[in-house]
Amino acid sequence: MRVTIAVDAMGGDHGLPVTVPAVSKFLAATPEAQVVMVGLAAPLEAALAALDKTLRARITVRATSEIVGMDEPPTDALRHKKDSSMRVAIDLVKSGEAQACVSAGNTGALMAIGKFVLKTLRGIDRPAIATQLPNTRGVSTVLDLGANVNCSAEQLLQFAIMGSALTTAIEGNDNPTVGLLNIGEEETKGNEVVKEAAELLKHSGLNFYGNVEGNDIYKGTTDVVVCDGFVGNVALKTSEGLVQMLYKFLKDEYTRNWRSRLAALISYRVLKSFKSRLDPRRFNGATLIGLRGVVVKSHGSADEMAFEYALHKAYREVAHGMLDRIAQRIEAVSAQLPSVALPDAERAD
Amino acid sequence: MRVTIAVDAMGGDHGLPVTVPAVSKFLAATPEAQVVMVGLAAPLEAALAALDKTLRARITVRATSEIVGMDEPPTDALRHKKDSSMRVAIDLVKSGEAQACVSAGNTGALMAIGKFVLKTLRGIDRPAIATQLPNTRGVSTVLDLGANVNCSAEQLLQFAIMGSALTTAIEGNDNPTVGLLNIGEEETKGNEVVKEAAELLKHSGLNFYGNVEGNDIYKGTTDVVVCDGFVGNVALKTSEGLVQMLYKFLKDEYTRNWRSRLAALISYRVLKSFKSRLDPRRFNGATLIGLRGVVVKSHGSADEMAFEYALHKAYREVAHGMLDRIAQRIEAVSAQLPSVALPDAERAD
Repeated sequence: MRVTIAVDAMGGDHGLPVTVPAVSKFLAATPEAQVVMVGLAAPLEAALAALDKTLRARITVRATSEIVGMDEPPTDALRHKKDSSMRVAIDLVKSGEAQACVSAGNTGALMAIGKFVLKTLRGIDRPAIATQLPNTRGVSTVLDLGANVNCSAEQLLQFAIMGSALTTAIEGNDNPTVGLLNIGEEETKGNEVVKEAAELLKHSGLNFYGNVEGNDIYKGTTDVVVCDGFVGNVALKTSEGLVQMLYKFLKDEYTRNWRSRLAALISYRVLKSFKSRLDPRRFNGATLIGLRGVVVKSHGSADEMAFEYALHKAYREVAHGMLDRIAQRIEAVSAQLPSVALPDAERAD
Repeated sequence: MRVTIAVDAMGGDHGLPVTVPAVSKFLAATPEAQVVMVGLAAPLEAALAALDKTLRARITVRATSEIVGMDEPPTDALRHKKDSSMRVAIDLVKSGEAQACVSAGNTGALMAIGKFVLKTLRGIDRPAIATQLPNTRGVSTVLDLGANVNCSAEQLLQFAIMGSALTTAIEGNDNPTVGLLNIGEEETKGNEVVKEAAELLKHSGLNFYGNVEGNDIYKGTTDVVVCDGFVGNVALKTSEGLVQMLYKFLKDEYTRNWRSRLAALISYRVLKSFKSRLDPRRFNGATLIGLRGVVVKSHGSADEMAFEYALHKAYREVAHGMLDRIAQRIEAVSAQLPSVALPDAERAD
């Protein structure tokens, strides 16, 4: 399937030195993809000049005059940076010139501009941030990871619908199981919102497993794990911190003395292979899900390999019809739960 | 300092085969401690018969006729098991015959009985569950880990007071830093409760660092990390699941072929030392904090070594005056924040 992706060429901690080579590799690996690189004309053209001609022919340049700063308040970016690389990349999705946008820029600005320009899907109150995490069986799709700090039960239901559709699109799993993140498996556990969400999910027609706990994310008990953005953000960042600490401890132990250094040398391949299974670059790319368009946020510090993963993720979401799948699942759930009013109008917040 | 600890000898997945040898080792290591073992007389006396006589002389037996089941609803345990080993162990703290109680039994029942029998400390709305987790600098005290799924800003302030006093008592750190778990460091981040709690903490006189994120728990950014019980429980269980997954991945890689098995053999000491730094047994023992007595909950599946750690934790809390330290810090914070009404009356819920 022919897919055009708009890339915010200037976004992230590194900008062009990462986005250009990543796009080049992505295009080489994906014959049906095309890219619109959005950014400051002179440096962008200079960076693209080094590319192979057949790849270069699949890249269009859209020149812009501004860049959204990594720490810029989202409302400022939304109001005053109408010719920024981020804004124009999203505009291209709105106009249909591209089917997806990928940016390593400021998450808050990307979400604010995405909501304003693209609006929210019918049936969805607010977009969420979803990503995949490794588990012992494969990957879990977890959402929300921080866009919504206070969620209603209906919103958690919407996250479940979107997470389920996303998992089908990018993992090819037609009927993913959905778990509701709670502090115990029993129905009596948790706060009122979670209990109410469990009731909705039970009658939603989705493949609802029931409550899951934090450890189930990495066990892979369910394909999708649903939670509010506060809890999801803490779970994600706690995991990042724990992995960093474990690496530090492992390094400490392997560099303690000459014996342990020798053991490290002999274990080189094993440790490399171990680290690669957890490599966050392989999971780079969070989907801003619930917008009327595919928007993938790369980690700001992403390197070439990580940014390429984010491009592939956006491609799969388009190629496997994520937006249509969300719409279909919203229809199906509405039919099962006629009493739950899913929002009808376009929203810009 | 002479300290008597009441031990629920029957609690946990294993009961006597774990509690008796753990008590024996604890007493051997702690000359000033005494223990009251609470449980079914015949099997308890039989298990104690094997002990060294000088240690046996420091153990009193309190015979009871019932056991609280690991899955028993807390209200049933509270209402109908007045002669259970758990209940009587807590009664001994109430009567002053013991200064602390340690149980590996049902957490919900222990909390319900603890609140009913001991009541809540002046200035504290509800008790919390606190534990220590390893970080790259030492340990973090984290609370609440699941006792309170909905917390007010005042409750988060109370958790900060209690966590600070607990850290002083068991880590010997007189002015521990306190972080408020949030989804960003900026003051604008998070929900209303967290923002309000940050305002209270800023003026509390506690050593408040500000907002911290999930990764700060393992970085060791602050000595104490405060959060509501839903978030804390998810962070803790997510960590448990992640460590299990990492161990599995490490094992997979080290057993992949004869080369990697050889590397594992050569790395034996390194890997053993690595695992021991994370050994959850070394961190066993969650404090049910905010009660008018020291109550430590051991993990239900604790082995002898883990249960001994929980006993040492209870001992340190008593020996270093945790309850008095909480009371002093409540007074000090009340003086700083006269407008915040900390609860005055005894509460049983």
